[in-house]
Amino acid sequence: MEFHIENILNDLKKDDFQAYLLTQFTNIEYISNYKPTSFAFCILKEEPIIYASKMDMEIANKNSTIDVREYESFDVMIGDLKKEGIKSLAIEPELAFSTYEKFRDDFSIESKTYVNTQRMIKSPQEIDNIQKATEIAQKSFLELDILNRNDFESVVAFDLVKSMIENGASRESFDTIVTSGANSSLPHAVPEHKSLEQPILIDWGAIYNGYCSDNTRTMVYTEFQHEIWDIVAEAHDKAIKAIKPGLKCCEVDKVARDIISEYGYRDKFIHSTGHSLGLDIHETPGFSPRDETIIEKGMVITVEPGVYLEGEFGVRLEDTVSIDKRASVIGDLPLSI
Amino acid sequence: MEFHIENILNDLKKDDFQAYLLTQFTNIEYISNYKPTSFAFCILKEEPIIYASKMDMEIANKNSTIDVREYESFDVMIGDLKKEGIKSLAIEPELAFSTYEKFRDDFSIESKTYVNTQRMIKSPQEIDNIQKATEIAQKSFLELDILNRNDFESVVAFDLVKSMIENGASRESFDTIVTSGANSSLPHAVPEHKSLEQPILIDWGAIYNGYCSDNTRTMVYTEFQHEIWDIVAEAHDKAIKAIKPGLKCCEVDKVARDIISEYGYRDKFIHSTGHSLGLDIHETPGFSPRDETIIEKGMVITVEPGVYLEGEFGVRLEDTVSIDKRASVIGDLPLSI
Repeated sequence: MEFHIENILNDLKKDDFQAYLLTQFTNIEYISNYKPTSFAFCILKEEPIIYASKMDMEIANKNSTIDVREYESFDVMIGDLKKEGIKSLAIEPELAFSTYEKFRDDFSIESKTYVNTQRMIKSPQEIDNIQKATEIAQKSFLELDILNRNDFESVVAFDLVKSMIENGASRESFDTIVTSGANSSLPHAVPEHKSLEQPILIDWGAIYNGYCSDNTRTMVYTEFQHEIWDIVAEAHDKAIKAIKPGLKCCEVDKVARDIISEYGYRDKFIHSTGHSLGLDIHETPGFSPRDETIIEKGMVITVEPGVYLEGEFGVRLEDTVSIDKRASVIGDLPLSI
Repeated sequence: MEFHIENILNDLKKDDFQAYLLTQFTNIEYISNYKPTSFAFCILKEEPIIYASKMDMEIANKNSTIDVREYESFDVMIGDLKKEGIKSLAIEPELAFSTYEKFRDDFSIESKTYVNTQRMIKSPQEIDNIQKATEIAQKSFLELDILNRNDFESVVAFDLVKSMIENGASRESFDTIVTSGANSSLPHAVPEHKSLEQPILIDWGAIYNGYCSDNTRTMVYTEFQHEIWDIVAEAHDKAIKAIKPGLKCCEVDKVARDIISEYGYRDKFIHSTGHSLGLDIHETPGFSPRDETIIEKGMVITVEPGVYLEGEFGVRLEDTVSIDKRASVIGDLPLSI
């Protein structure tokens, strides 16, 4: 994490806001190194402050790089802000409506993505953490020896998580997907208590030092499965090759989508081509048909085209890339297992 | 799940709303039996509808008991509602501000807890699921043989989750807490890669058929630890005995808090006495000093007093009770291990 509060203060000044209210745990962690465990309110201003819950005070005092006060009530917090003469408040787009309701009578409010925007560009230290998380996840995947397993999907998923933890991850970065046979046509399938069928699709990641990794591999068997795999691999490879600073995110999505379309599977590619990751497994920007964000050096984004044939099977191939002059794949796990 | 849409339609009519917008995954699951995996918008009205993401269409069509349409854009969805003459919209308090922003120009909007309120009262089938989740979790805890373990906290946590899955849980109901020594004074401690110290505090739960369980046990060793344990156990037992329909939730909190206060530890009990659970691990109402909800038959709520001595240790004891004429503890794990 390499947070520069001056940038946010400049953003605020530019947009005529006096303070920025944050409640998303990873935004607060990014800013202060303290990750809330129940709830917290972080007010960014010249003298930033975090209102932490009583039960978090010990850990907040220990970890936070900015001042912490014990949360008492909305009234007290709002009173503090008004005493400071604060009248205009920027908020996160994700803020719960019920929290917005507490503030809306006393402040002029608008949603802003200042912190999310800063989080789009990863520092070298952040990229190192994502790299380490990816290495742990990929090593653990290889230790599964998936081609020689004849277990329940749920057992394989469990062994993969166990291996990631033994290899140094703090935990999985999202619910590990081990799916097979017809269920692989569900992009977010849940591992079942049934033996592996064909093909096998595994989508998994580790968390290291707070940072996520994300990969998918699909192990195919029949000629038709191989045919689909080749299409997805072509989309994966060409999308990665297309990535460069200055391009719009949607243009990368288009590269992958056009290839899949050429083979006649346009309506079988039912999600975006990729998403950023970091402290969260899903961050902005993403390689989606509607995301016009300009690609910049320092972004870390997944590339994960897929083809999903309902009732038959699905194939998805996913790597995470870090972007400099071009995109480099993080980790070294072969696409074909 | 035993959802009665007529009740919600009556609530809407009574409050002069034409529709109710839901986006919380467990609310949508409760209503439709389809749990979104990326995002979805459920509109409750005479003819309820779910707008599901393209990638969820297969599973939504398979599981949902109410009509599903593929989400295209906010504009299309809002256009559909306006075509039906809908002008007033109730929303969940948790709705993201950015979603509220999309709707606010076209509808008169207020937040309502209709579904959460219905979810407060569990059906016999829901209680059965919580009971089964609790049995799995408690059986798995006993299999740990915690008093004879000399492992890392993280390994014990891992073994507990593994055991729950082997015993039939779909997963843990929240990040399993295995903490020990001085770290046990953190209510939401994260298991560390270090050997168990004394005391040992374990807070864990399973998910069975979508429903959560939640328990905490603290294994104490020194005389002083035993002294604190006895105080917490007294608060735990007397709070449970005090529970009955007609009382306010805060009155149960007061029973536990007063006992801990009598022994001089008022400011060391740094959280609420309990929370409801069900499809979510934290639901309303809770046994907190500010919750004036009247206790009713069918509620399922945890009782988990604790005393946290920073730099020394913490003790928490937690059971989940289901409420009929009085409260019955779910599961049969002794408080003293």
